[in-house]
Amino acid sequence: MKNTRNEHDFLGELDIPNEMYYGIQTFRAKKNFNITGITLMNEKGLIKSLGQVKKAAALANRDCGVLDPKIADAICFACDQVIDGKFDDQFVSDLIQGGAGTSVNMNANEVIANIALEYLGHEKGAYQYVHPNNHVNCSQSTNDAYPTAVRLALYYKLNTFCTILKRLEDAFALKGREFEEVLKMGRTQLQDAVPMTLGQEFHGFATTIGEDIQRLREVQSLLLEVNMGATAIGTKVNAPEDYPELCVRYLAKETRLPLLLSPDLIEATSDTGAFVLAMGTLKRTAVKVSKICNDLRLLSSGPRTGLNEINLPPCQPGSSIMPGKVNPVIPEVVNQTCFYVIGQDVTVTMAAEAGQLQLNVMEPVIGFALFTSLEYLGNSINTLVDKCVTGITANKEHCAKLVMNSIGIVTQLNPILGYETCASIAGEALLSGKNIHEIVVLERKLISQEKWNEIYAMDNLIHPKLIIS
Amino acid sequence: MKNTRNEHDFLGELDIPNEMYYGIQTFRAKKNFNITGITLMNEKGLIKSLGQVKKAAALANRDCGVLDPKIADAICFACDQVIDGKFDDQFVSDLIQGGAGTSVNMNANEVIANIALEYLGHEKGAYQYVHPNNHVNCSQSTNDAYPTAVRLALYYKLNTFCTILKRLEDAFALKGREFEEVLKMGRTQLQDAVPMTLGQEFHGFATTIGEDIQRLREVQSLLLEVNMGATAIGTKVNAPEDYPELCVRYLAKETRLPLLLSPDLIEATSDTGAFVLAMGTLKRTAVKVSKICNDLRLLSSGPRTGLNEINLPPCQPGSSIMPGKVNPVIPEVVNQTCFYVIGQDVTVTMAAEAGQLQLNVMEPVIGFALFTSLEYLGNSINTLVDKCVTGITANKEHCAKLVMNSIGIVTQLNPILGYETCASIAGEALLSGKNIHEIVVLERKLISQEKWNEIYAMDNLIHPKLIIS
Amino acid sequence: MKNTRNEHDFLGELDIPNEMYYGIQTFRAKKNFNITGITLMNEKGLIKSLGQVKKAAALANRDCGVLDPKIADAICFACDQVIDGKFDDQFVSDLIQGGAGTSVNMNANEVIANIALEYLGHEKGAYQYVHPNNHVNCSQSTNDAYPTAVRLALYYKLNTFCTILKRLEDAFALKGREFEEVLKMGRTQLQDAVPMTLGQEFHGFATTIGEDIQRLREVQSLLLEVNMGATAIGTKVNAPEDYPELCVRYLAKETRLPLLLSPDLIEATSDTGAFVLAMGTLKRTAVKVSKICNDLRLLSSGPRTGLNEINLPPCQPGSSIMPGKVNPVIPEVVNQTCFYVIGQDVTVTMAAEAGQLQLNVMEPVIGFALFTSLEYLGNSINTLVDKCVTGITANKEHCAKLVMNSIGIVTQLNPILGYETCASIAGEALLSGKNIHEIVVLERKLISQEKWNEIYAMDNLIHPKLIIS
Amino acid sequence: MKNTRNEHDFLGELDIPNEMYYGIQTFRAKKNFNITGITLMNEKGLIKSLGQVKKAAALANRDCGVLDPKIADAICFACDQVIDGKFDDQFVSDLIQGGAGTSVNMNANEVIANIALEYLGHEKGAYQYVHPNNHVNCSQSTNDAYPTAVRLALYYKLNTFCTILKRLEDAFALKGREFEEVLKMGRTQLQDAVPMTLGQEFHGFATTIGEDIQRLREVQSLLLEVNMGATAIGTKVNAPEDYPELCVRYLAKETRLPLLLSPDLIEATSDTGAFVLAMGTLKRTAVKVSKICNDLRLLSSGPRTGLNEINLPPCQPGSSIMPGKVNPVIPEVVNQTCFYVIGQDVTVTMAAEAGQLQLNVMEPVIGFALFTSLEYLGNSINTLVDKCVTGITANKEHCAKLVMNSIGIVTQLNPILGYETCASIAGEALLSGKNIHEIVVLERKLISQEKWNEIYAMDNLIHPKLIIS
Repeated sequence: MKNTRNEHDFLGELDIPNEMYYGIQTFRAKKNFNITGITLMNEKGLIKSLGQVKKAAALANRDCGVLDPKIADAICFACDQVIDGKFDDQFVSDLIQGGAGTSVNMNANEVIANIALEYLGHEKGAYQYVHPNNHVNCSQSTNDAYPTAVRLALYYKLNTFCTILKRLEDAFALKGREFEEVLKMGRTQLQDAVPMTLGQEFHGFATTIGEDIQRLREVQSLLLEVNMGATAIGTKVNAPEDYPELCVRYLAKETRLPLLLSPDLIEATSDTGAFVLAMGTLKRTAVKVSKICNDLRLLSSGPRTGLNEINLPPCQPGSSIMPGKVNPVIPEVVNQTCFYVIGQDVTVTMAAEAGQLQLNVMEPVIGFALFTSLEYLGNSINTLVDKCVTGITANKEHCAKLVMNSIGIVTQLNPILGYETCASIAGEALLSGKNIHEIVVLERKLISQEKWNEIYAMDNLIHPKLIIS
Repeated sequence: MKNTRNEHDFLGELDIPNEMYYGIQTFRAKKNFNITGITLMNEKGLIKSLGQVKKAAALANRDCGVLDPKIADAICFACDQVIDGKFDDQFVSDLIQGGAGTSVNMNANEVIANIALEYLGHEKGAYQYVHPNNHVNCSQSTNDAYPTAVRLALYYKLNTFCTILKRLEDAFALKGREFEEVLKMGRTQLQDAVPMTLGQEFHGFATTIGEDIQRLREVQSLLLEVNMGATAIGTKVNAPEDYPELCVRYLAKETRLPLLLSPDLIEATSDTGAFVLAMGTLKRTAVKVSKICNDLRLLSSGPRTGLNEINLPPCQPGSSIMPGKVNPVIPEVVNQTCFYVIGQDVTVTMAAEAGQLQLNVMEPVIGFALFTSLEYLGNSINTLVDKCVTGITANKEHCAKLVMNSIGIVTQLNPILGYETCASIAGEALLSGKNIHEIVVLERKLISQEKWNEIYAMDNLIHPKLIIS
Repeated sequence: MKNTRNEHDFLGELDIPNEMYYGIQTFRAKKNFNITGITLMNEKGLIKSLGQVKKAAALANRDCGVLDPKIADAICFACDQVIDGKFDDQFVSDLIQGGAGTSVNMNANEVIANIALEYLGHEKGAYQYVHPNNHVNCSQSTNDAYPTAVRLALYYKLNTFCTILKRLEDAFALKGREFEEVLKMGRTQLQDAVPMTLGQEFHGFATTIGEDIQRLREVQSLLLEVNMGATAIGTKVNAPEDYPELCVRYLAKETRLPLLLSPDLIEATSDTGAFVLAMGTLKRTAVKVSKICNDLRLLSSGPRTGLNEINLPPCQPGSSIMPGKVNPVIPEVVNQTCFYVIGQDVTVTMAAEAGQLQLNVMEPVIGFALFTSLEYLGNSINTLVDKCVTGITANKEHCAKLVMNSIGIVTQLNPILGYETCASIAGEALLSGKNIHEIVVLERKLISQEKWNEIYAMDNLIHPKLIIS
Repeated sequence: MKNTRNEHDFLGELDIPNEMYYGIQTFRAKKNFNITGITLMNEKGLIKSLGQVKKAAALANRDCGVLDPKIADAICFACDQVIDGKFDDQFVSDLIQGGAGTSVNMNANEVIANIALEYLGHEKGAYQYVHPNNHVNCSQSTNDAYPTAVRLALYYKLNTFCTILKRLEDAFALKGREFEEVLKMGRTQLQDAVPMTLGQEFHGFATTIGEDIQRLREVQSLLLEVNMGATAIGTKVNAPEDYPELCVRYLAKETRLPLLLSPDLIEATSDTGAFVLAMGTLKRTAVKVSKICNDLRLLSSGPRTGLNEINLPPCQPGSSIMPGKVNPVIPEVVNQTCFYVIGQDVTVTMAAEAGQLQLNVMEPVIGFALFTSLEYLGNSINTLVDKCVTGITANKEHCAKLVMNSIGIVTQLNPILGYETCASIAGEALLSGKNIHEIVVLERKLISQEKWNEIYAMDNLIHPKLIIS
């Protein structure tokens, strides 16, 4: 018994192993694009979305009368299998590939055709009954089906990512409340500034992450505009009159997402604006998360010769030579992942700019950049929450000691003593090593001990009120 | 008579030329930061915004009772002068500077103080009457006044930029209508695809620019959130209780913008998210404009050995050696400006990521990047509209000839003849050099001449309807 | 019988599956860093280099009298096994990780210790006999062992990459010779310029790639400077006096590379300059390869409505909807890989800039960027050679026809007729559609037919000589 | 008397103000490209190089017999004037421009022609005697003359830049010697590591800058390969046989640089590899300088709640609200300039990748990026030397106190006590707040006070020797 079936396309014929659901074009693609080793299989959400797109198209084609209901039914069965992840291992194209996604689209077309064929009692490869191009791809082109599937997959992946970000926001907010009585020195330009609380600092981290979730949600909505029915270049060539709206409606139903048909299908077919902005917004998140990790590493620097305001939970011995050393390994790995994401933003920029005329042929690497960035950064942030943020503790006494010994608290005396007198007090403190209380109350007697107590009461340090005289 | 006045700060004293309205701190800054030669004077919108911020602060301080109404009045007078651009030449700080904007803020404080002093009948430098820090900067810090002014200036500059973009959108839309009967070949992956019109192509350019205007408008609104009253690090130290809301209200009135006070002033003081996203969105516009310019250059390539579908208006002789050569110099300069903008996005990213703890000290270069990008790209796009787009003409007959001689038009026969037969026709055409009509109608007689005429009627080529049999 | 062994470090104890050669610290790292799924196993060259480093260190330690010869012998045995790739599956750390490489270094230390233990007849985990830190890591720190291994691995990987680039250079050179009689139009700014040959164009591709091989070879040599003996921060703490030179000598012998000990070990320990320049030079290659792929796609555009000067070998059907369409899929995938590399250059830049004080903690992502870039781009270029360049054919007649019908050939008449006359001829040709011969010889009779024949002889078009009168 | 002269080109005629030495094409360019306001005048080195190129060409043309010696002589006179900077104000093209440098080349051609005309007793514009194209540009094209001039100008500017870098290296080296007895804590991953000296740290800065000077010198040499004689696309069309070598020889003599003629002129004409690598290497310098500035800011953080190991000279009051605050404003401005340079590297990358076919039309923005980066970064580094590095002082006692109170010094006991015992000591110190001496000598009595004194002697801390027992 034969283990292969013979398939052909207009470049010739090839023997395809019989157990494969994909066909000759996928086979060629697999041989042509051996670049990263990261294949469709790694991006299961994209496989699911391809199934959804093909199903919606089949139903719309059936309603338009261009697809035999029996074939449409078989295709829908096959799509459901694909959507359920039962054929993930048949999606073998490298994520970075030439052909503007044709290999991905044909991989889906071929796998779905062969599942449908078996469902109808035929052998794989009997494409006269269900043809990858004529039937599964009916009224479609790679140029509408592929970007639509990528958009859906990104939309879902951004959902997951926002959920992860929310965990981070919540973890910081919790710490914000936990540390709301921890007085500490605020610093600007790495120089001692004025007092604040550690709770305010962590609450600020929560706020800033929360804003990024909002920005990502906004950009997510741009992904809901799809170009099904555009076919090759947006002129709707070979698509039935009512197909575009119908297809989008079916797709909205299948995905339960408020999808929209692009008003200008010509423009939509070559446009990568939503991807550029999604990546740019994700980069913004990477910038913020990286900044926060920089801060966590600074605040936990020490233990004896650094700031030492907070302790990160130890995760592993920090050195192969220095005993007892514990390093901020989790923020460090997050920083590095952020740098990866920032680099991928440039990749997307180059790819988007390189699109020519009626199509952007570089969409696969745009997808690669977005998918891997979301995956890696999502993993990193989960790690940050679980192995770092939730276990952070404060060195409350040390923090308070730093504040009261600082020169920066002289700022609070500005409204009473004026900027210039305060500057001279600060200057003396710096030169002499004395603290502000010594100079102001004991030596220069510029204010009384009672006034000092009022101004530098814990509550007034944390929530300063303007005290003028 | 003395030509200088003596000023001091806590680092010492200096003689300042008497005609200067700025004082010792600006004088130091001018000597410290001699980097780009591009100074505040080049960014008049920022000077205006500084005036607005200082005026709003003075009014709020007066209302809060911390600023003598007479001094407040003099400061407001001075701010109005600054807002009106009458002292632009006194704003001398390099746009790239250390100190997180302190030099800019002090430049404004000093100039305003001296104008106010003269208004009150004093000499410049008589700061006991109106003091740059104690009065003009009252209840403020560089860390709220400076970023607020930058945000306002960017908001206005984005207004101007969007108006310029709208000109581009309109110019493309006009050409879209002008060319709506120009049949031409669509191309994907630089290979002949299926027919479309030149009007659709230009209409697509208009659509894509229109979408970017929307995105820029959305990101503009993020700039309306300001942190006045945050003072040094967001704890409101030294600001009266009611000052923040009051100040923002006065600023909103002065600028006629719906400004909002940041709900988390600690976060707001170190946050550069809005700048990152504004720059990222502007980069998106640069990517799109660059892509369009690439297309214009491709479509006008030739005149004899390129695509030669359109003609760009000649602007200058194209070569010092090749007579008669005319080059697409305007799209070329726009491309290059787009590359500048894309590079500046990386600059902003680096700067935003480098912010530490309670402040982002790198804001000046963020401002530099945004201001110069908007300026250069705005100039480029105006040039593109005026010297290129509006004068583009189509080579209508040549375009049509290319279509009818193409192989790509076989796609229209898919629904009748099936993908595989069409592929074999295409293959024969490619090998033999024949055109599709010859093979399909004359030789293989697969469809009648009447059917051919129906399918390949101008109207059906431009707005294809599905013709099945 | 127990399937696990108990191991401890200063954070506590854990049960480690007995079959694992790695120990508790690797186990923790595996759990801590779950980011990309791309582990040490994917970078076998790095595993090999780690083995070489550890072996050289053991031999130097033995000679310095700080390591028992029997233990050194066992460690060397173990290193040889690792070098031979027999324990690749025991290297499980994610390539992006925190801890500045400590997890990689400890992974090597633990695996080597356990192989050595078994070699000496002990059980895995009996670290009193061979200890990962005290013995395998003797006189070392992560901060010298890890970057040294990364440098060696990169050196080797650049060797492989240069071999691949040489294949591309050769393939282009071969085509250069094959096409040396194919006359074609040269183009500047996408506008018709003056004639050249397709052979010159492909020869130029070979030249430019050849130059990049030289540049990469130069930067490779920077990787030969290593900091063994620096230990923690470059002060050589805990390393015997003679160890550094001895270790580097052993390492040079083991690797057969002319390694050098860094003259300033403090600087070397935090310096990432060689990585930045290696990545920058690789980016240069990506820029050039991408430019060439852009050209290949332009030159093969068509087949009917593009330049159509060359044909790329068809690799797969080009469309799911357009029959017979064949796309330049191989250059396309190469372009995209180049964009990946260019993005990773930004990642390396960010990571290098983020190094603080005595160490660059971001080296893992620098390694990740370099390793994946070399891998992906190497794969792409091999594909470009095998599936594209070697099969390119020329459309010789079409190319020649374009030349003789062009206006650009008027340039050759400059020295005889002057720039301004030539410009007027060019202008007439453009307006009238006539060709240059018609205007110059037949109508204006500016030169004779014989002179025309001399100037426009094939040989003079290909290798133009100055003909003045 | 007329104030204008009438000039024409093949696009028409224009009245040019009589005092202008530039002509119609420059006039058009000035109107066409109104982008950055940064013109040729800002880059005097480029004007000088243009003069040198034109002079060498004139001499070579004369020798080849294609240029009348009297005209050649007049052109040489004019070039010398230009080289001497006497006509800088006549170079008005915006640095970012379309046309691949044609406007710059024509600006030079026209100015030189008019100076030559006056020298010969003619009026400006009497181009029948000395013609910008036929005579000044003889045997040249923009495509060889312009990039050659850019290369020369960059070569010189890199000279200046390397001199500035050398100042920085020297300043750090001096501080390295000054601080060689200042014991301080080394830090890795922002955590306390092992002792070192501040001198070693600053010496390391000198070393790393020194290496960059070497790298820049290497890349500089790539700029010495020029393509004079290539003319339009590298085929030497319209250039006399011996002209290329002759021209390069004259240019080498004029510039006193060991220039080389590109062996493959076709390749050389479109190649931007040297620019990409020059920018990439400059970016490497920016990365290093930025890293050093980050360190300076960290080390000087405080004064009371930071590391406070060094003091930067105060340059200006640090805050408009916080009295006595002094910020590290000079390193800050240098950091920001480095970010500018890093962004411009992306600009150059995009521009280099966008080159198509026989020419890179984006060279002007490449030049802009390199010129402005060298200018701004050079200014920044001079500022860093003069206003910061030379005035840095050390807080010697504070540094030493941090060391002896640290836990990290336990590392020195590894060779005696073993990694695990040391780890337990470190753990106890961390929990109890005790210092290492207390635990090791006084409590656990693991080593004697004499041994302690030997190990922790100043000299052994600074230049550690391995002490085993």
